[in-house]
Amino acid sequence: MYSYEWEQLQTRLPQWVEESRKQHVHGQVAAYIPELSKAPKEALGITIMDGRGNTITSGDCGCIFTLQSISKVFTLILALMDNGERLVFSKVGMEPTGDRFNSMLKLELVEPGIPFNPFINAGAIAVSSLIAGNSIEERYARILQFFRLLAHNDRMDFDQDVYESESATGHLNRSLAYFLMEKGILRGKVEDVLEVYFRHCAVNATCADLARMGLILAYNGYDPIRNEQLIPRRYVQIAKTFMTTCGMYDASGHFAIQVGLPAKSGVSGGILTMVPGRYGIGVVGPALNRMGNSTTGVHLLETLSRELDWSMF
Amino acid sequence: MYSYEWEQLQTRLPQWVEESRKQHVHGQVAAYIPELSKAPKEALGITIMDGRGNTITSGDCGCIFTLQSISKVFTLILALMDNGERLVFSKVGMEPTGDRFNSMLKLELVEPGIPFNPFINAGAIAVSSLIAGNSIEERYARILQFFRLLAHNDRMDFDQDVYESESATGHLNRSLAYFLMEKGILRGKVEDVLEVYFRHCAVNATCADLARMGLILAYNGYDPIRNEQLIPRRYVQIAKTFMTTCGMYDASGHFAIQVGLPAKSGVSGGILTMVPGRYGIGVVGPALNRMGNSTTGVHLLETLSRELDWSMF
Amino acid sequence: MYSYEWEQLQTRLPQWVEESRKQHVHGQVAAYIPELSKAPKEALGITIMDGRGNTITSGDCGCIFTLQSISKVFTLILALMDNGERLVFSKVGMEPTGDRFNSMLKLELVEPGIPFNPFINAGAIAVSSLIAGNSIEERYARILQFFRLLAHNDRMDFDQDVYESESATGHLNRSLAYFLMEKGILRGKVEDVLEVYFRHCAVNATCADLARMGLILAYNGYDPIRNEQLIPRRYVQIAKTFMTTCGMYDASGHFAIQVGLPAKSGVSGGILTMVPGRYGIGVVGPALNRMGNSTTGVHLLETLSRELDWSMF
Amino acid sequence: MYSYEWEQLQTRLPQWVEESRKQHVHGQVAAYIPELSKAPKEALGITIMDGRGNTITSGDCGCIFTLQSISKVFTLILALMDNGERLVFSKVGMEPTGDRFNSMLKLELVEPGIPFNPFINAGAIAVSSLIAGNSIEERYARILQFFRLLAHNDRMDFDQDVYESESATGHLNRSLAYFLMEKGILRGKVEDVLEVYFRHCAVNATCADLARMGLILAYNGYDPIRNEQLIPRRYVQIAKTFMTTCGMYDASGHFAIQVGLPAKSGVSGGILTMVPGRYGIGVVGPALNRMGNSTTGVHLLETLSRELDWSMF
Repeated sequence: MYSYEWEQLQTRLPQWVEESRKQHVHGQVAAYIPELSKAPKEALGITIMDGRGNTITSGDCGCIFTLQSISKVFTLILALMDNGERLVFSKVGMEPTGDRFNSMLKLELVEPGIPFNPFINAGAIAVSSLIAGNSIEERYARILQFFRLLAHNDRMDFDQDVYESESATGHLNRSLAYFLMEKGILRGKVEDVLEVYFRHCAVNATCADLARMGLILAYNGYDPIRNEQLIPRRYVQIAKTFMTTCGMYDASGHFAIQVGLPAKSGVSGGILTMVPGRYGIGVVGPALNRMGNSTTGVHLLETLSRELDWSMF
Repeated sequence: MYSYEWEQLQTRLPQWVEESRKQHVHGQVAAYIPELSKAPKEALGITIMDGRGNTITSGDCGCIFTLQSISKVFTLILALMDNGERLVFSKVGMEPTGDRFNSMLKLELVEPGIPFNPFINAGAIAVSSLIAGNSIEERYARILQFFRLLAHNDRMDFDQDVYESESATGHLNRSLAYFLMEKGILRGKVEDVLEVYFRHCAVNATCADLARMGLILAYNGYDPIRNEQLIPRRYVQIAKTFMTTCGMYDASGHFAIQVGLPAKSGVSGGILTMVPGRYGIGVVGPALNRMGNSTTGVHLLETLSRELDWSMF
Repeated sequence: MYSYEWEQLQTRLPQWVEESRKQHVHGQVAAYIPELSKAPKEALGITIMDGRGNTITSGDCGCIFTLQSISKVFTLILALMDNGERLVFSKVGMEPTGDRFNSMLKLELVEPGIPFNPFINAGAIAVSSLIAGNSIEERYARILQFFRLLAHNDRMDFDQDVYESESATGHLNRSLAYFLMEKGILRGKVEDVLEVYFRHCAVNATCADLARMGLILAYNGYDPIRNEQLIPRRYVQIAKTFMTTCGMYDASGHFAIQVGLPAKSGVSGGILTMVPGRYGIGVVGPALNRMGNSTTGVHLLETLSRELDWSMF
Repeated sequence: MYSYEWEQLQTRLPQWVEESRKQHVHGQVAAYIPELSKAPKEALGITIMDGRGNTITSGDCGCIFTLQSISKVFTLILALMDNGERLVFSKVGMEPTGDRFNSMLKLELVEPGIPFNPFINAGAIAVSSLIAGNSIEERYARILQFFRLLAHNDRMDFDQDVYESESATGHLNRSLAYFLMEKGILRGKVEDVLEVYFRHCAVNATCADLARMGLILAYNGYDPIRNEQLIPRRYVQIAKTFMTTCGMYDASGHFAIQVGLPAKSGVSGGILTMVPGRYGIGVVGPALNRMGNSTTGVHLLETLSRELDWSMF
């Protein structure tokens, strides 16, 4: 009934997780706000879900963490559904940068001044400002509803403490947002846009949520469990392309070579990835490498891709 | 009683002004706020004041304009008087940049992240945050009092319309300020600092005011008319050095070669300069060249320096 | 016997070629050396080859052009075969840049100073210096032999005139090479490395050659016609990943979104691409867009990918 | 007969030198070629010469060192004498950079691509290419003759070992030169220009030579000892302006604030400076600070300027 690969996963995943967990000594938990710094540095968990809803979990899958940059995948998709490709790509570009995720340098060097892509902070803030809705509340509610739909989890919501800390200390994001306002990229008021942005970054999730959301992407917007097309296939294609070229900050090229799967990481240590047409995968490992990706999570995904020949290239 | 040079100036200045006025065709009046865009493009005026208070004026000296970046010279001096060299230079550097006045690029490339010098916008905002006072009102009042003292003009105050326009559209300055906040450079709240900053940039002046203020600098902080030391000599020395190396945006090097006098320009077309030990000089010509300096004013000062051998080098 | 898609291609390709050919008015033929500037601006040709060696051609497939940057794909593979992953990736990185192909900026901003990836000029020069061989002649001979093997074409060789022009005017590449030498990245003498580099960039090819070479990559290093593994699969995987993330200069992200196939373009207007597991494809259209890619060729590939659903994402 | 200041200097200079010598612990001798690395780290010497040829020396004035970047002051003057202002300033700009002396970054960011100023390496190489002469030998001979004339020392010549080492390892300067060639800035062949450049940088001098050369600049091109105008005053004015705004690498702004004299440093630890109208000054102290300036020499000049009120601002 189960494939050979699935059996391999069931048998060997615990050992691979323990092997990768050791990498936590090379990483640091994000410490820019107190809420993130409390995450257990040595934790590592993974959930893999197939198209019939079967799951394999291993390690610390009970961890609850905030989506952070992983949310950018889904706000991009929602912004595309709300506005279409033409409008969205008049506000953000399509190019990977090779620069740090919060770089201002790139904003200055590029004409006509739009952010390089929707996954650097400047681009994600621009995208957030495109979500339809007449108020902060309405826009956030639409985003949350979309996340819940994809994760099949109605309890998802943002963490108030994380949100407040991010909002209180988010000077760099404010700086980026005012720069975008100066360039005419932002829709609405800076503080309103940032409130929506800080909220969706602070939405809580588990590996199971990520795996479920990833499964929809792995099936090109179709939910194979509920048998329903939730997202137009083209918008998933766009999202998966960006996840491949710029989903792992300035280690995206390295991840493409060593893992070869569309993925998006967040500063809380989460990684959402997938094996196209087969699995949705959620990983969490709070110890970050200097590129801002989960050092244990990346090691685990490298192992899986190498052992199971998962690279799409 | 008057020197040969003074007689030369009285005789030939009107002709030099008319010659330089023609350069207005190569410039553009600043148009980023409506108040500035109304300035007469072809206007050019100059006031020269010597140590006994004698003045020569020529051209459109009746113009009232806002100090804009010229105010940065005096907020730097006041910040030095309030805090001393050590503290001020822990918040801003001493190096010219060769970059545009509002560049963010430089903020990113430099360690440990302090603005290059007190005359680029980021540096001037950092300096503004150092002015002593318990409230926005008190800090602005101290700045204004200082400007009035130096200009010997109690009617000086900020232009409400210019202030409001600058504040409403100053997204780039907000962006810079939040970046400085992120880096721990700014003292106080971003919006408070910016309010003080926007106000002192919006203080109205005439060529006569600039000449009077410049005279104090030309005499190293001593007012030769009222016989009183108004500023410690060392702080004037610092200000004059910065005026020489970075007073004219990214044409400062060019101005040093072609004019060779300490000077500071503003986007309203004003230039404050001096002949050390001899004259204070105020110029206004709203047509700006692409570096942001008065195209007619720079031409006039090049003529004066060349004809009267005024370069300090 | 033939698939529906193959029949579609046979029927509709001529019309798609003619439609895309019109885009030549938006491009410019490379003019930095006289040999390139002679290419016919309105030309557009394509060859598609399947795993049994069947080909479809359309448009100006008789064109002979130089590989230019397309050669970088194969020198990378050969350098990997000669040295292994570890050594090669100690000399070049894995990250896309978002910058112009000949940027020096990136060289300076990155630690520890290795070129971002093997497809920017600096990276390709570094890779060229890794090809085994005791002399310029031997190293070039090994490269040429490898190209001939993959293209199944023993007449391939470099164009003497193009080589000499490139060598005579290649000041920027010399500048890059000396920079790499300074940083300890280059193996051998600058002039020797550049001679090999200029030669392999000047190797002549046709669309049929590109399609044949692309077919080997589409089959992961296996030649389905001669039934022989020519390249270790892992090195083809690496090459295809780079082709996806940085094969089309600083429009690589755009190409990934709009076409979604591994590809590499050259300044002569050539593009080598593939449909993984199915076709090798060679395109030539000398009119370049401002990113340096064939404007007609990119348009044609966008049409094919959209109409035939070829994106791998 | 001697001024009070001169007596002060005679009395106190030895103590000031010993005090500044202690700073050598904070510096490093340049080590990129073996010849430079042999310089005694703790050495510090100074020669001050007045307009009648009186000299005060203190410390290790017997040191012989190579001019390195100090030579750029005089090749600039000679290029101006050979070509006039208009031509020279079509090849180099007038702006300080705030960047490292060998930055390529600045070359790329500036339009129309000319080096920022004649004292960064790229600018100095461009200036070297403007020296008149039909051969390498003739151009170098003219430069050397000019140096000897100003230093009143016919034994000056380049150090063969230093020259050969610089030439053998000067990959970065080659990189810059080819970049300039690409941009059409360079006159002549790259290797010829660099040979002249490497030679004039390798000319040997002592503190006495620097003081004598500085004296000519302090007197605006007039030699007060031989009663002869050696350089047109305007070209000295230009040189002194550049020495003030960009003579001390990216610590030029700091030096202007803390010393306030025109100066030029070299990587061998030499500094040529002057008190305008009064003294020529030569300093040598091989221990360099991280900006590339003599750490002991800068400390000594800061002391002198502060104690004797030498700042020109």
